[in-house]
Amino acid sequence: MTDIASALGALRIETPSWGYGDSGTRFGTFTQAARPRDVFERLDDAAEVARLTGSAPAVALHFPWDAVADLAQLRSHAEHVGLSIGAVNPNLFQDQDYRLGSVGNPDPRIRAKAVAHLLECVEIAHVLGSSAQSLWFADGTNYPGQDDLSARHERVAECLAELYAALPPEQELLLEYKLFEPAFYSTDVPDWGTALMLCERLGERARVLVDLGHHAFATNVEQIVALLAARGRLGGFHFNDRRYADDDLIVGSVNPFALFLIFCELTRERRLTIDQSHNIEDKVEAMVLSVVNLQEAYARALLIDRAALSEAQAAGDVLRGHEILLDAYRSDVRAPCAQFRERAGGAADPIAALRESGYSARMAELRK
Amino acid sequence: MTDIASALGALRIETPSWGYGDSGTRFGTFTQAARPRDVFERLDDAAEVARLTGSAPAVALHFPWDAVADLAQLRSHAEHVGLSIGAVNPNLFQDQDYRLGSVGNPDPRIRAKAVAHLLECVEIAHVLGSSAQSLWFADGTNYPGQDDLSARHERVAECLAELYAALPPEQELLLEYKLFEPAFYSTDVPDWGTALMLCERLGERARVLVDLGHHAFATNVEQIVALLAARGRLGGFHFNDRRYADDDLIVGSVNPFALFLIFCELTRERRLTIDQSHNIEDKVEAMVLSVVNLQEAYARALLIDRAALSEAQAAGDVLRGHEILLDAYRSDVRAPCAQFRERAGGAADPIAALRESGYSARMAELRK
Amino acid sequence: MTDIASALGALRIETPSWGYGDSGTRFGTFTQAARPRDVFERLDDAAEVARLTGSAPAVALHFPWDAVADLAQLRSHAEHVGLSIGAVNPNLFQDQDYRLGSVGNPDPRIRAKAVAHLLECVEIAHVLGSSAQSLWFADGTNYPGQDDLSARHERVAECLAELYAALPPEQELLLEYKLFEPAFYSTDVPDWGTALMLCERLGERARVLVDLGHHAFATNVEQIVALLAARGRLGGFHFNDRRYADDDLIVGSVNPFALFLIFCELTRERRLTIDQSHNIEDKVEAMVLSVVNLQEAYARALLIDRAALSEAQAAGDVLRGHEILLDAYRSDVRAPCAQFRERAGGAADPIAALRESGYSARMAELRK
Amino acid sequence: MTDIASALGALRIETPSWGYGDSGTRFGTFTQAARPRDVFERLDDAAEVARLTGSAPAVALHFPWDAVADLAQLRSHAEHVGLSIGAVNPNLFQDQDYRLGSVGNPDPRIRAKAVAHLLECVEIAHVLGSSAQSLWFADGTNYPGQDDLSARHERVAECLAELYAALPPEQELLLEYKLFEPAFYSTDVPDWGTALMLCERLGERARVLVDLGHHAFATNVEQIVALLAARGRLGGFHFNDRRYADDDLIVGSVNPFALFLIFCELTRERRLTIDQSHNIEDKVEAMVLSVVNLQEAYARALLIDRAALSEAQAAGDVLRGHEILLDAYRSDVRAPCAQFRERAGGAADPIAALRESGYSARMAELRK
Repeated sequence: MTDIASALGALRIETPSWGYGDSGTRFGTFTQAARPRDVFERLDDAAEVARLTGSAPAVALHFPWDAVADLAQLRSHAEHVGLSIGAVNPNLFQDQDYRLGSVGNPDPRIRAKAVAHLLECVEIAHVLGSSAQSLWFADGTNYPGQDDLSARHERVAECLAELYAALPPEQELLLEYKLFEPAFYSTDVPDWGTALMLCERLGERARVLVDLGHHAFATNVEQIVALLAARGRLGGFHFNDRRYADDDLIVGSVNPFALFLIFCELTRERRLTIDQSHNIEDKVEAMVLSVVNLQEAYARALLIDRAALSEAQAAGDVLRGHEILLDAYRSDVRAPCAQFRERAGGAADPIAALRESGYSARMAELRK
Repeated sequence: MTDIASALGALRIETPSWGYGDSGTRFGTFTQAARPRDVFERLDDAAEVARLTGSAPAVALHFPWDAVADLAQLRSHAEHVGLSIGAVNPNLFQDQDYRLGSVGNPDPRIRAKAVAHLLECVEIAHVLGSSAQSLWFADGTNYPGQDDLSARHERVAECLAELYAALPPEQELLLEYKLFEPAFYSTDVPDWGTALMLCERLGERARVLVDLGHHAFATNVEQIVALLAARGRLGGFHFNDRRYADDDLIVGSVNPFALFLIFCELTRERRLTIDQSHNIEDKVEAMVLSVVNLQEAYARALLIDRAALSEAQAAGDVLRGHEILLDAYRSDVRAPCAQFRERAGGAADPIAALRESGYSARMAELRK
Repeated sequence: MTDIASALGALRIETPSWGYGDSGTRFGTFTQAARPRDVFERLDDAAEVARLTGSAPAVALHFPWDAVADLAQLRSHAEHVGLSIGAVNPNLFQDQDYRLGSVGNPDPRIRAKAVAHLLECVEIAHVLGSSAQSLWFADGTNYPGQDDLSARHERVAECLAELYAALPPEQELLLEYKLFEPAFYSTDVPDWGTALMLCERLGERARVLVDLGHHAFATNVEQIVALLAARGRLGGFHFNDRRYADDDLIVGSVNPFALFLIFCELTRERRLTIDQSHNIEDKVEAMVLSVVNLQEAYARALLIDRAALSEAQAAGDVLRGHEILLDAYRSDVRAPCAQFRERAGGAADPIAALRESGYSARMAELRK
Repeated sequence: MTDIASALGALRIETPSWGYGDSGTRFGTFTQAARPRDVFERLDDAAEVARLTGSAPAVALHFPWDAVADLAQLRSHAEHVGLSIGAVNPNLFQDQDYRLGSVGNPDPRIRAKAVAHLLECVEIAHVLGSSAQSLWFADGTNYPGQDDLSARHERVAECLAELYAALPPEQELLLEYKLFEPAFYSTDVPDWGTALMLCERLGERARVLVDLGHHAFATNVEQIVALLAARGRLGGFHFNDRRYADDDLIVGSVNPFALFLIFCELTRERRLTIDQSHNIEDKVEAMVLSVVNLQEAYARALLIDRAALSEAQAAGDVLRGHEILLDAYRSDVRAPCAQFRERAGGAADPIAALRESGYSARMAELRK
């Protein structure tokens, strides 16, 4: 299985700056002593994950959470610790003005404010060398009658058109959908169909971003991936796992077979970002485990005998096609993945290495 | 509320010929003595529903279930009992050849057979004076690996293109989606996004049909309705209600408020068809109750103070907008609906009238 | 329908002190100018709701959120504004010590701390004249392997036994279950079966509390209510509505028919508490609307022709039984409910009255 | 991993006679040429699965589907092909009399008929040497108001008491629950809480049977298993997998990690029965793959380092506990499982062996 160790070099994951800070639920947040105090320290944690795993060379940022006075200094710090800047994520849900939405808000003044922030993020991305705007809108309504559903859709479309017009050629627009939360009656971009409709109105560089936690129960996500890819509109992923709602658990922790099936549909490189919320476990460890889970899912997908699979499918041999996937999935890919990490300068067992290194204790001391 | 009684005349519902025969679950079917023995008797039942309710002037047909040697005779019988022929529904799921699908089948021979049936139904519709092909494909897979998901999509698209090319100008193509069942891993047209994508590749007369039972839990169906309508792609409805899966219960029996919200989004006439499966209750009674539930939902939607609603929405007055809908919904519209039915030659209380008439007992005797 | 206006006097709802303060989602909280600054002001808001509706004479409290130095003063203020103290709700989820749970925590020190708080609340309730401990445990795990599922159950049982032993005869123990959140893999008391098992180990004054938002999709909640009531273990309700997860929306706003069906199963008085989270709408208005929705559901249930229903059920007349419920549900009960409110010293249209009174603006000024 | 090969001998699975015949959905059934024509041929297929896998020494029967004139001959045939008779499954859902239920039916005449069949099955089991009655009731209602929910519960309890009183000491009563289908509003035994309540009223030999497809979305089934086991009420399993509803797919085909987690909670032997519905794939192959999936899940659970797990859990080390499970799960257990099968006289690759043997073609010829 030496090939896996080599092939894993093609897997490039962005870890999220917001995944390193304290996070919680509406019932509260449990603080961790080692949590970074600013974006520079968040980059340091991301660099540690990158070093240990060999597959996480970029970090996605979130604004204004990661705002600094001197963006050049931020870029320089990232490069210094060996990271590039991944997607830029504008935040349009925390400001008190966004109580009834941002780009879908009935008030044109609020929509203008939202668009201004989107345009600011284009400039930020330009300075940081980022090539993507990753957009998620919390917009929606909580009660029937609160607002007009098709009017909201048009407002969102218009604001996105303003953004797209300002996008420099090296940046792409990634549009994320989400079934619900924080809106509980309607969400303005609730599903891939709506996101695709909007992207097709914008232009070629607008693509759909799939967050694994943002679907209704039982949705066949790999089918969405296959259809978006075939249409040239698959922008990338926000990786995490869900059991009940948008739980934002460690990717692969609920159904690792489902994660494998998504990698089966990925035939060329996409933007792969982790987007999780580690409420009770150590965040750096959880991020490392997430990268390891992605490496293993990717590695297993590499093992599929594609020729035999096509043959079984063409012959309508139901169980044979299924078994060919199972053969790849059941393989133990821990050894070649460990080999890849070691060759890349990381650790065979990166969580054990992290624990032995005392990183968390050192950071807790440093970040008091 | 005299206006409601008048306005109800615009509501035209198609009842389904297949809803009058015995139906069941995979665990068995309970037979009813009064069940019709052929399509002519099914039309008789539909005529009884039409007569009692005043809102069900057409009947949707299903082929080959409703196949007869002489289509002209069928049309003539329909006209004789006062009905017009609604949508024609091809059946591509019962033949043993369709074990692995029809238009998505990996075997080109089976796909050709499926297309031939579709083309036959175009001709049938032409003879019967029907203006729509209502398409639902049971196609899909039961296990990961069984088939290639994007290849299946392309096969479906190609077969639909053949059908669309043969469609006379007076017929439209309605494409229904369904989350699952009878396929349990992937379904070829699982959601409105896929259905819309396919319709846009076909042409203007291809539109999406919304079956109220074919969504994942919590899906906001009225939002889908609003977006499809705004895009000019809302073809119509299959009415029923669901609680657990695609239960095919009497429309409005699980959540009548949700049914009302769908009518709130319907600003112009669409094709409205009932599609239910009455397993344990009397079928003609159940169909009458379904029409009554649709009349009441429609009537309540007419009561909405649209100007006040727009004003509240523009002002961002969350509770006021919601209350305006509630005001309409809480109204008791039974009296004006009864008045409409009486004026239309039906019955104020159509289920009571049906029971008193002894229709079911007479049919049970006749149809032994 | 004069009888309804009289019968409504039997409906006694507790509003929650925590429902008057600012609340939000994990994505943020939108503050409202009129929000109360302490428990005394929360009681003032509850009194306003009580006054306007005539059905909300008690207020449920939450500790330590409602903790004050002088409990006697708190009780006295409640009585002064015309309220009695409803259930006392201990809080075992916000303290940093509860990261891995409270009564289910693997650490005996933390469990002892949790029990101490429970015992403190027994004393608080005694002083305040409350007759119930209303318990919800956020306890659970986020990942398989994190803890032993049956060991956790035993720990919870043991802590509850300590509490029950200390309970004075006038207090009852209400045990709430919840499918998930904030725990995302397992929750220690996830369903009514677990809650019932625990209550039966405790004794007669331990009963199950049903929160309408705490079930899996499609769960038949009224059946749970019927079975718990028949067994003498139905403690009461936390009223709200859900569409996606535990959305905590205004009760009756998602499916008012489902709310009606719950009242159909309530044949004698239970503890009825509202438990909602008003994120974007005015909280006092939302609470008033919630009480109104409960009044209307209760009023409709009173209209059921119970004798005819029993007769139809005994005869196995499926549609007739269903229609008898529909007859009650479709009735417009707004007039008798308004009449009741007016007689009780409240307002026929309590939200309009609230808006006209300028209460919210006055409070915003006062509570700056 | 030689230990696994030895330990697998303890795994004893019952395959279902009804899983070998043609089965389908409400949309139709696809027939297979090799399908057995009677219970004797069904036993032959079960014997083939037993032979190939080494873990399926018993067969569960279903009456009246498996009814024969001479039960002694049936038992003798089973012994002849090396099988013992597993649980006996009465059928109370297909007879036309059961339209409104069997043991929950409002009509006492129908309930008496149902009890008579239950008592007949006790006698059948006695003759066949079976030690369990495995009960699933399709009973429920389709519409609110159709019947009284608590009255139905009492009727079920009374009928079960009659059965339990007649049960010889060597037989146990297994009570299965199911969320829905074929009933679509309420099901009389919808969840484990109801099943447990009923079993505790009956006596010690009444235990709950867990069918993996009979839960609401997201239900933590392994937690139910743990709690029932701790209370001494875990009777056994019906194995299959679900994605959307009660899909009855091959066990382990949707989420093999979830299957593993159930085996993690099984600390002593239980009755393990497969209960699947193979609609489009070869049934004998599908049964073999199911047994293989169970062998692998069981084998992985054997690999858990229980001491280290307990230590991590006691220490509250969230990720460490999770990783210990992952370590076991990620192991490739195909080799030791193959070794077990070979030692037991079966095949290393039993599906390949089955295909090479031409069994299906021979049976198709024989069973024309």
